[in-house]
Amino acid sequence: MSSAWSNNGLKISVFGESHGKGIGVVIDGFPAGIKIDEDFILQMMDRRRPGKNRMSTARSESDTPVIYSGICEGHTTGTPICCVINNSDTHSGDYSEMQTLARPGHADYTGFKRYSGFNDIRGGGHFSGRLTAPIVYAGAVCELYLKQHGITVGAHLASVKDACDDLFDPRDISPELLDRVKTKKVPVINDSAAPFIESAIEAARLDLDSVGGVIECAAVNVPAGLGNPMFGGIENVISSLVFGVPAVKGIEFGVGFGAAKLFGSENNDDFYADESGEIKTTTNNHGGILGGITSGMPIIFKAALKPTPSIAKPQNTIDFKQNKNAEIAIKGRHDPCVAVRAVPVIESCMSIALASFLI
Amino acid sequence: MSSAWSNNGLKISVFGESHGKGIGVVIDGFPAGIKIDEDFILQMMDRRRPGKNRMSTARSESDTPVIYSGICEGHTTGTPICCVINNSDTHSGDYSEMQTLARPGHADYTGFKRYSGFNDIRGGGHFSGRLTAPIVYAGAVCELYLKQHGITVGAHLASVKDACDDLFDPRDISPELLDRVKTKKVPVINDSAAPFIESAIEAARLDLDSVGGVIECAAVNVPAGLGNPMFGGIENVISSLVFGVPAVKGIEFGVGFGAAKLFGSENNDDFYADESGEIKTTTNNHGGILGGITSGMPIIFKAALKPTPSIAKPQNTIDFKQNKNAEIAIKGRHDPCVAVRAVPVIESCMSIALASFLI
Amino acid sequence: MSSAWSNNGLKISVFGESHGKGIGVVIDGFPAGIKIDEDFILQMMDRRRPGKNRMSTARSESDTPVIYSGICEGHTTGTPICCVINNSDTHSGDYSEMQTLARPGHADYTGFKRYSGFNDIRGGGHFSGRLTAPIVYAGAVCELYLKQHGITVGAHLASVKDACDDLFDPRDISPELLDRVKTKKVPVINDSAAPFIESAIEAARLDLDSVGGVIECAAVNVPAGLGNPMFGGIENVISSLVFGVPAVKGIEFGVGFGAAKLFGSENNDDFYADESGEIKTTTNNHGGILGGITSGMPIIFKAALKPTPSIAKPQNTIDFKQNKNAEIAIKGRHDPCVAVRAVPVIESCMSIALASFLI
Amino acid sequence: MSSAWSNNGLKISVFGESHGKGIGVVIDGFPAGIKIDEDFILQMMDRRRPGKNRMSTARSESDTPVIYSGICEGHTTGTPICCVINNSDTHSGDYSEMQTLARPGHADYTGFKRYSGFNDIRGGGHFSGRLTAPIVYAGAVCELYLKQHGITVGAHLASVKDACDDLFDPRDISPELLDRVKTKKVPVINDSAAPFIESAIEAARLDLDSVGGVIECAAVNVPAGLGNPMFGGIENVISSLVFGVPAVKGIEFGVGFGAAKLFGSENNDDFYADESGEIKTTTNNHGGILGGITSGMPIIFKAALKPTPSIAKPQNTIDFKQNKNAEIAIKGRHDPCVAVRAVPVIESCMSIALASFLI
Repeated sequence: MSSAWSNNGLKISVFGESHGKGIGVVIDGFPAGIKIDEDFILQMMDRRRPGKNRMSTARSESDTPVIYSGICEGHTTGTPICCVINNSDTHSGDYSEMQTLARPGHADYTGFKRYSGFNDIRGGGHFSGRLTAPIVYAGAVCELYLKQHGITVGAHLASVKDACDDLFDPRDISPELLDRVKTKKVPVINDSAAPFIESAIEAARLDLDSVGGVIECAAVNVPAGLGNPMFGGIENVISSLVFGVPAVKGIEFGVGFGAAKLFGSENNDDFYADESGEIKTTTNNHGGILGGITSGMPIIFKAALKPTPSIAKPQNTIDFKQNKNAEIAIKGRHDPCVAVRAVPVIESCMSIALASFLI
Repeated sequence: MSSAWSNNGLKISVFGESHGKGIGVVIDGFPAGIKIDEDFILQMMDRRRPGKNRMSTARSESDTPVIYSGICEGHTTGTPICCVINNSDTHSGDYSEMQTLARPGHADYTGFKRYSGFNDIRGGGHFSGRLTAPIVYAGAVCELYLKQHGITVGAHLASVKDACDDLFDPRDISPELLDRVKTKKVPVINDSAAPFIESAIEAARLDLDSVGGVIECAAVNVPAGLGNPMFGGIENVISSLVFGVPAVKGIEFGVGFGAAKLFGSENNDDFYADESGEIKTTTNNHGGILGGITSGMPIIFKAALKPTPSIAKPQNTIDFKQNKNAEIAIKGRHDPCVAVRAVPVIESCMSIALASFLI
Repeated sequence: MSSAWSNNGLKISVFGESHGKGIGVVIDGFPAGIKIDEDFILQMMDRRRPGKNRMSTARSESDTPVIYSGICEGHTTGTPICCVINNSDTHSGDYSEMQTLARPGHADYTGFKRYSGFNDIRGGGHFSGRLTAPIVYAGAVCELYLKQHGITVGAHLASVKDACDDLFDPRDISPELLDRVKTKKVPVINDSAAPFIESAIEAARLDLDSVGGVIECAAVNVPAGLGNPMFGGIENVISSLVFGVPAVKGIEFGVGFGAAKLFGSENNDDFYADESGEIKTTTNNHGGILGGITSGMPIIFKAALKPTPSIAKPQNTIDFKQNKNAEIAIKGRHDPCVAVRAVPVIESCMSIALASFLI
Repeated sequence: MSSAWSNNGLKISVFGESHGKGIGVVIDGFPAGIKIDEDFILQMMDRRRPGKNRMSTARSESDTPVIYSGICEGHTTGTPICCVINNSDTHSGDYSEMQTLARPGHADYTGFKRYSGFNDIRGGGHFSGRLTAPIVYAGAVCELYLKQHGITVGAHLASVKDACDDLFDPRDISPELLDRVKTKKVPVINDSAAPFIESAIEAARLDLDSVGGVIECAAVNVPAGLGNPMFGGIENVISSLVFGVPAVKGIEFGVGFGAAKLFGSENNDDFYADESGEIKTTTNNHGGILGGITSGMPIIFKAALKPTPSIAKPQNTIDFKQNKNAEIAIKGRHDPCVAVRAVPVIESCMSIALASFLI
């Protein structure tokens, strides 16, 4: 296995290399008859698309998804959906000189060991961040499915280095808020956070460096009772997808690592029945999941993304074919902060995971 | 699916309820001919066993694993291993009065919704922390397998509330250190941390409360090149197991969430060839994994565990059969800090995950 | 993988060796709240049980299933069901002398190669026909589930050597017929076939030989539209189970191999709407499955079982540890015709497969 | 699930509809560094290609596989291989008039029920025999892998209606014979059988009818010890693929259904050590598989294919949208005998299955 994922009969198989003919995804087990809103999908892919501004790589990609199967007359057919995105703007030359130098923080060396040197190394090959485009396609399709069940998913850039956005109110997140963030150039809740985040990224870029960030993701109106104990839980399934996004190094649900510093009496969320008889919790430290199963409260998690490993500053490394020390200065076009464009990718992981439990 | 897990042909199927006849695990796909050191397995299960001191529940369990199949004359046969642990010391009476009250922080309500009220609620049923005993059995078997490949796995209690142990030196962890921690009553690296941790737990216990903690886990001498990009990566597979351990709410690899606050030039780990020609990194912020694949450096992750939800203090909640508000005071015997006994469980998740890539 | 199976979230993990402590099965993903009729289950297991008459081995097994988890107060809990059957009447002595002689037609040699000699060879170990008892347990539970959806499953002994029973009328099989066959000592439709079948078996037994047979299995009142194209079809899933039954060497659906000798105009089943508007076919050569998906007509397949390989006649073989030629005369107690007791096992495969599509 | 298959980490995900933009396959988990002989692949796909002669449909397809990923500089990269075949010669008009009439023997009605009418019905959609082209691509890649391990796979048309080819000598099949059959217009062992088979097909075609057939498939030089007991056996895995080929209604291994008519003393294959010390069997009724595991003898199975359901003769059927009786006369271009072109498809199933055990 490498890039195929499945849960409860929903299967996602991602393929492609950064500088090959194209990349894409096959979605198997998706239900028939789901109306496909192409505009929504294209907007979602556009949120991930690079080349829009200085926060992202200048590499321009049209990233137009071409549907080979599974959608007919605006609806899913129930048989596998295949979406292909052709590669076009590939400057292999930028990478040729470093084909035997391991870029620090990248998978060049580990990929070389894994594939005995046969993997396509151009532009990161199958490890490229470009491979998140098919994930977003699959996520968008799943998000449409969730919408038709009344569920809204969204994400925002919670922080970049020391610049922080507000966090979601875990007890009460409106679908409108989740949708509004999707339209913003800097995907934040509090617009006054945007300039600080942009400054942090721009400063890194000017210094030939990069910065990491945290993405917070939420889903609301998820019915209680989805998921399973142990290995089939909501947290397990979400994290099995989220760690498939390059640069993610941590995930926490609800109050997460903060729970390790609390007393049980602080961390436990009291249940209550509201005036309409609906069961809720007064707080939501549990992030909408107890025992792997949804409680009906908003599902919330945070993912930590490391700084883009490709930086123009010179770095010490090795030539992994000759096993000797060397120095590398990475050219090419790179995002100074991958977390910005990763927001719709993380959101997609949530959507794919939840869809797999609802189908 | 609920409690079955698989990767690369290794399958683990956990069964049982806290107050049923017994609990256990079937391990399918484990290789033939692995020597089984029963003492090692029993020591590992003993580390998880409750009732040993005030840091854990007074509930006493013999927890003796009974082997039904898969081991013959001291070696694995290659066909499924089944281990059963009989339940004995079960005080159902302690729980009977709360069968319709949702214990805050527990899966009573979500389990009720998931199983339409048919799940066995006594003692938490299948959601009980007792179900981690079979995970430890499977983990111990896998750890024996890893040992025979020269790999050592270990874990320690990195913190309980504000009391902290030292952390592993991510560049260099000796197998001896990992093994030494396994023998300690309080599983810490720095023995001077033990009394602070014990005090934090005892204070919570005396206050009828509980506390959370963080566990750090490592594996050394793992060869470079194990794992896969995307969804089949080491991080994905470890986290798909770790979130199966009750109370875990977060996981981070290497510097984890800290990476979100670093520049790329700080976070990237420079490669170098040491005098023997072996490839290493000068730092190990990546936790031994790049692109989902091992680098040969120690694999390191931290897991955050929430405080035991069962506390004797009165709490507000609901009667989930009548959908009305209520108050609950949980009796029974509970660990004031689940993180202590979870150390070998988290270690087991690492062992199972790594074994699944080596087999 | 060896003995774990899954489809659409239903997972079956069989464990055990013929002469170990016990055998059993874990059923994961089975729905909550299904009423468990223990009498039905015991009757089904009794149909498979040996030692009842001369048609089967004299080995007597109590075969009482002990439930460790997943059933509470007469209903499934929704969490994993574990059933253990203890081994008791094991005469290891009968086998000891042949531990290095490959019994022709058995898996002794192939198992030795597969497991490098570490597999438990006593009584066939994990390859023993005794391992079908857990399959029957799982099948009985699934059959109860199907009954609650109005579906009836059944099977009969279509032939033993040249002695033949009638075949099902593929257009119209009554649930009563399917249930009636379950109560018979010789599981046939036409009672006048029973003496011929018994004679064929007895003749083989007296000649220290064995005979093969064919089992026909059917399910009625299965709704149209279950299944999938390609690899997820009803035929694929049933056959992935049926070939798990020792001695099965062939399977055919509907007219099966006969279709290869027909014209399309003969083989095609015309559709029609009956007076109530229900869609049916005038014939049922397709065995209730078109394109991997149920048509609403009875599902029918036949499985061919080879003669019991254990025969008392002397045979030429090899000593597989010394790689030299030898002679073997198999002692011990063996069914002269495994097909008789395999009837409920094959029926179980149908039930497990169909349940996995309905859940 | 519908069209995704996996075993032991090898995953095949087929996509496409007959009249959509294209069809294809993603192969995940295939090893790195396998040399890809494009000529071999194209020859294999050419064997399946229609339009070559009167034995197959006049529909002409270029069927050129376009590689999107996973192959670089003539070798597999180890990351997913994606092959796309564009659709071009599609006469949707031929099918438009029958969009609500269920073609007897086809999946029109069952697909309509399965997908609530949303599946793409043009040309059979995802149920079309055209979807076997991606299977052949995957099979050819796997066959190249097997060749590099010394294993040869092949298949022939054992019979069409009453016209029969010779069968393989199950004890001794030369790789040369398997390769020679691949080059023949009529894929038979005994060339004198070809005219009889062609006549049977031509007679059916002239009569606006179709005929079924049997394909025999073999693999030689497979090492002993591959496979697993129970559900993970070679037979289970091959059949889970073979029933994914449209029109297959039965499969048997070795002597298959014939075993049901034999005595154990006839059916058992005696083992012996040949002069070089290699273990063989004097006969090969077991088809190279005992207990789900290879014995080292040739693996042999037969698959029965029903006659092409599309025939020009008028047939009774229903309009499945109006649930009323109707008559249908199928126009369009159809193979009078699908078994001919299915030979390389069945061969591909063997190759995919065996590769999944060797990887």
